[in-house]
Amino acid sequence: MATLTVCSFAQQNLFGGQAPKSPEVNVDNTVTFRLMAPEAQKVQITGDFLPTQKVNTSYGEYDAPGVADLTKDDKGLWTFTTKEGIKPELYLYNMIIDGVKVTDPSNVYAIRDIANTTSIFLIGGDRADLYKVNKVPHGTVSKIWYNSPTAGLTRRCTVYTPAGYETSKQKYPVLYLLHGIGGDEQAWTELGRAAQILDNLIAQGKAKPMIVVMPNGNISQEACPGETSQGFTVPTMALPKTMDGYFEQAFPDVIKFVENTYRVQKDKAHRAIAGLSMGGFHSLFISINNPDTFDYVGLFSAAVDQQQKGGLDEIYANREQKIDNLFAKHPKLFWIGIGKSDFLYKNNAELRHYLDSKNFKYEYLETEGGHIWRNWRIYLSEFVPKLFK
Amino acid sequence: MATLTVCSFAQQNLFGGQAPKSPEVNVDNTVTFRLMAPEAQKVQITGDFLPTQKVNTSYGEYDAPGVADLTKDDKGLWTFTTKEGIKPELYLYNMIIDGVKVTDPSNVYAIRDIANTTSIFLIGGDRADLYKVNKVPHGTVSKIWYNSPTAGLTRRCTVYTPAGYETSKQKYPVLYLLHGIGGDEQAWTELGRAAQILDNLIAQGKAKPMIVVMPNGNISQEACPGETSQGFTVPTMALPKTMDGYFEQAFPDVIKFVENTYRVQKDKAHRAIAGLSMGGFHSLFISINNPDTFDYVGLFSAAVDQQQKGGLDEIYANREQKIDNLFAKHPKLFWIGIGKSDFLYKNNAELRHYLDSKNFKYEYLETEGGHIWRNWRIYLSEFVPKLFK
Repeated sequence: MATLTVCSFAQQNLFGGQAPKSPEVNVDNTVTFRLMAPEAQKVQITGDFLPTQKVNTSYGEYDAPGVADLTKDDKGLWTFTTKEGIKPELYLYNMIIDGVKVTDPSNVYAIRDIANTTSIFLIGGDRADLYKVNKVPHGTVSKIWYNSPTAGLTRRCTVYTPAGYETSKQKYPVLYLLHGIGGDEQAWTELGRAAQILDNLIAQGKAKPMIVVMPNGNISQEACPGETSQGFTVPTMALPKTMDGYFEQAFPDVIKFVENTYRVQKDKAHRAIAGLSMGGFHSLFISINNPDTFDYVGLFSAAVDQQQKGGLDEIYANREQKIDNLFAKHPKLFWIGIGKSDFLYKNNAELRHYLDSKNFKYEYLETEGGHIWRNWRIYLSEFVPKLFK
Repeated sequence: MATLTVCSFAQQNLFGGQAPKSPEVNVDNTVTFRLMAPEAQKVQITGDFLPTQKVNTSYGEYDAPGVADLTKDDKGLWTFTTKEGIKPELYLYNMIIDGVKVTDPSNVYAIRDIANTTSIFLIGGDRADLYKVNKVPHGTVSKIWYNSPTAGLTRRCTVYTPAGYETSKQKYPVLYLLHGIGGDEQAWTELGRAAQILDNLIAQGKAKPMIVVMPNGNISQEACPGETSQGFTVPTMALPKTMDGYFEQAFPDVIKFVENTYRVQKDKAHRAIAGLSMGGFHSLFISINNPDTFDYVGLFSAAVDQQQKGGLDEIYANREQKIDNLFAKHPKLFWIGIGKSDFLYKNNAELRHYLDSKNFKYEYLETEGGHIWRNWRIYLSEFVPKLFK
């Protein structure tokens, strides 16, 4: 092994070196973070496991993640341990080294959300066990490109096919799962842990084996940043044509592609659509404009009151009439989930008020917290077991 | 858009903030790096585009990537611009903030190599255009799990199917493409840009449409770090059972899975195997132990002289006799690529000397540089056009 040891030595030192363990989840579920930085003046951590702090902005007050100081020992090792054990969850955090927010150099696990990359860790137990990779059969996750003649583009899509798909002759139902503004076709499998949630719920017998199709909801994009001919661009939320009707108009191209490509059940009873924030908005308008297409609709912290802004009038016109029409066809499930402190809470309450006034049947889940991925993972794991039963 | 603007504000500030553009490729292909860090005392950059520096170790001298200082302006913005334009290539780098090596916080594009994460950028042109996502038809990249009875594990594999695979009725040839020590089933698509290289070569008519199967060569692992029930472990090169014969012994499980799952041509003329470093070692021993299986063998900076260390004797025994046997069956291509300063150069020269002494026909490419991904991308893009012709 002499030659490969030299190789490993070179590789290890190429950009790395010895690193302290960070994060370390202790037996009491407190978590210790470490950074070796003898020359740094100040090291802090910010993350969604720390108590939030109120921040006032011109848009109003909101809860920002807290910040904590690490302390330095005489060897230059900085350390912070949470005061209490942390509840089961997937957590996001960054280190702040002399004022610069970075990912934890000891932790190779990181996720991009729009233009920010955060380190992650997962504390298992309770619902968070659904977010873990467990010793269960695993579905396949594919990045596949489809032609969208309506959009005039070839577009990238993430597709989850359940364990056994390749060898069975069976046809499967399909959940179309849409991301929020600034997101893309990777959001649900990265931040949303969708493949793990599906693997685990299916293995537990709580969900039917199904295909989950996660398209890119930004109709001007071919694919997520870095996966198009535009190269390694800086991700932005300021994309054109996100909520102007064109994504909804082009959605039949996605369905056509899926139904021509995978072994799927091609009827209303075996199609579901759900999305978070902008994706909930998309799900609402795609379903009410195509009332014979989906028997299951899920609105996760949905931007339900958005109006079109100079795009395709016909997609957003006559919302109430279209909702009435959808419910006249008796969808098997119309599901709404929202956090109590979500800035879209009031809009969702107005939608519920309208549904109540018409005696339309829907299911509703209200959770703590706001417009955050923690809630969207909860909603997905609550929604999926209700499908195709 | 008022509500979503608040949302975006909150999301943007959750872990981020304003960031300067970094890296920026200038018109003359010089590259500027920037970091806003008013409180930092020293900011440096290290990367494989900087002149290397000699480092002496107990293993001997090797070339380490250079380090350069950024300079600070009166607003706290640190900047470094390369002195000269940089040649087309995919480059890796890190920032060093007050002595701590981190990814560039302005750059969301990063790749993990074993336990180190580096920021990346790509300068197009020449061969590096093959590494870019171009406006060409794109293949599908899937993470799929297969059963390996020989290993007693369900294992994860990356599979590239060429554009058109889903809609054609055609059967395809298969390239099995293996990673090096410390790598995993993600290495070739991440650091190796294998999907882009295949997309581009196929679109240019230079390579036949083919399936590329990239298994995990660490037979004790189910999958790469973070994708198993062991959770978010720290990646290590010190894995058990990497070069002891068990991966080679279990390899028929991979072939069986592929040939039962995909539309493939199931004969020697339509199977190729290649790998880098440890993967080249695996490719050599898998091919010579199964001389009727592959018509194409590629050794990229291969660890060709490794001997088994207490594993399966029969895999590594009688190497020369098995090589003779392989060549007696007239493989269509036996291809060797190595860098002039690779620490495995001498071992490869010895192998070539043996092949020459027997008058066995092989192709050979010698490049500048050593045991680095830059070379493995070159070798893949040279090897693939020679397959299945």
